[in-house]
Amino acid sequence: MRKVGYLGPEGTFSHEALASHAGSDDLELVSLPTVYETVMAVHDGRVDQAFVPIENSLEGSVNATLDALAVETDDVAIVGEVVHPVRHCLIAREQMELEDIELVLSHPQANAQCARFIRTRLPDARVVAVNSTADAVRTVAESDDRAGCEVLRTDVEDVADNETRFVWLERGGPSGEQHGPFKTSIVYWGGDDMAPGWLVRCLSEFAFRGVNLTKIESRPRKQGLGRYMFFVDLEGRETDQHVSEALEGLRNHAETLKVLGSYPAA
Amino acid sequence: MRKVGYLGPEGTFSHEALASHAGSDDLELVSLPTVYETVMAVHDGRVDQAFVPIENSLEGSVNATLDALAVETDDVAIVGEVVHPVRHCLIAREQMELEDIELVLSHPQANAQCARFIRTRLPDARVVAVNSTADAVRTVAESDDRAGCEVLRTDVEDVADNETRFVWLERGGPSGEQHGPFKTSIVYWGGDDMAPGWLVRCLSEFAFRGVNLTKIESRPRKQGLGRYMFFVDLEGRETDQHVSEALEGLRNHAETLKVLGSYPAA
Repeated sequence: MRKVGYLGPEGTFSHEALASHAGSDDLELVSLPTVYETVMAVHDGRVDQAFVPIENSLEGSVNATLDALAVETDDVAIVGEVVHPVRHCLIAREQMELEDIELVLSHPQANAQCARFIRTRLPDARVVAVNSTADAVRTVAESDDRAGCEVLRTDVEDVADNETRFVWLERGGPSGEQHGPFKTSIVYWGGDDMAPGWLVRCLSEFAFRGVNLTKIESRPRKQGLGRYMFFVDLEGRETDQHVSEALEGLRNHAETLKVLGSYPAA
Repeated sequence: MRKVGYLGPEGTFSHEALASHAGSDDLELVSLPTVYETVMAVHDGRVDQAFVPIENSLEGSVNATLDALAVETDDVAIVGEVVHPVRHCLIAREQMELEDIELVLSHPQANAQCARFIRTRLPDARVVAVNSTADAVRTVAESDDRAGCEVLRTDVEDVADNETRFVWLERGGPSGEQHGPFKTSIVYWGGDDMAPGWLVRCLSEFAFRGVNLTKIESRPRKQGLGRYMFFVDLEGRETDQHVSEALEGLRNHAETLKVLGSYPAA
């Protein structure tokens, strides 16, 4: 039976998305406490695959995932991606009026995704961060002897098309055959990166060859302000001629270039 | 007396950095509960200036600041920047051994900046998120009748050169004369942004004219995955000939281009 690691505990968005995309496969789901631990469990062989969030349509990248893939491991590859809708509910111990709510608990990312709702509908409530949306519900449920909670409002997120992109990770690359269209995720840094025009020279390697970029993001290299690593998603597979030539060109500018994976686009 | 808004309460990093950079100026410091409220207080005229974090050398951009400047206001400009070192301490009610620590409270960004210390030196401690580092200390201090706390370890951050970049904000632009060298921060989005090569065409406007980019970052436009806005920092002032020509060129590609400010580089 395949072991799949995810950011637990049970009831998190990762758990819900994994359950709905795992289909009828016979999987053993392994709950892990942080994104870092989840990525490292693939590296250590404690799980065969992992399923981690990498990007949200409101809040942006999941930094812990990008940093773990770029810096902490060399053998964990992205082998697939999945886009899953996110909906938030306002939950209380019992039915109550919104104006009587004094305290809102949730994960900071969920609070951020509902910021306008909280500001306009719950202006007097204090907002407190907890480790996960699942922990928030558990805390509310356990604040009273009665079992259970009530859903006061559904879909309280600020923007309707709120989606999270998850990626499947495997050690060494995909174990089965895959079919395109493909996307490739890379990260690069260093070399002449403090020189004028360096960033544009890097990106021109793709433009010259007609390789389309779907995303670019800088993250700190953790060596002081101004030193970045660049995460780029592009259309095509690492072994496609134009893509492999562009990556070869990029190696002339960057000290380090890591291909995080080529995988079927969602 | 000039009123300056900051992300409070007293004792936060923003408060400490503001106090150390405000010098001998006669300022009234106004504590505000969120970055959003701090930016909007400038927009509303409740404060004359604000002082907000925009980027950390370990954790990257402060998304709330970028989003508020890009989307929520049109008249709040960056008029200056300051780089301030960040140091974290491990604080307890009383002197104790590290292995006896069961619970660590802090802001998620501070927890992230000390992740390796926590993982290796406090492997059995549960990590719980709170709203600010100041709130964490207050919670520990108030968990007992005795007053005061003990510092167990100083400089527990994972990387020594941990710095945060803060920006000064003013409505309508700088009120006094300024001296360079200058940096300019912009954000742009839209137009033909789903077409192949669009991103490289945008950035080439700067490369052709020898305008150096010091940072580029994508943030979601909150319209589903794949739609981004791009934050770029560049060397020079909006009114410099090469910069103004490059911005004019960029306006041909992007539906929206906002200059967030030209200001003396730190």
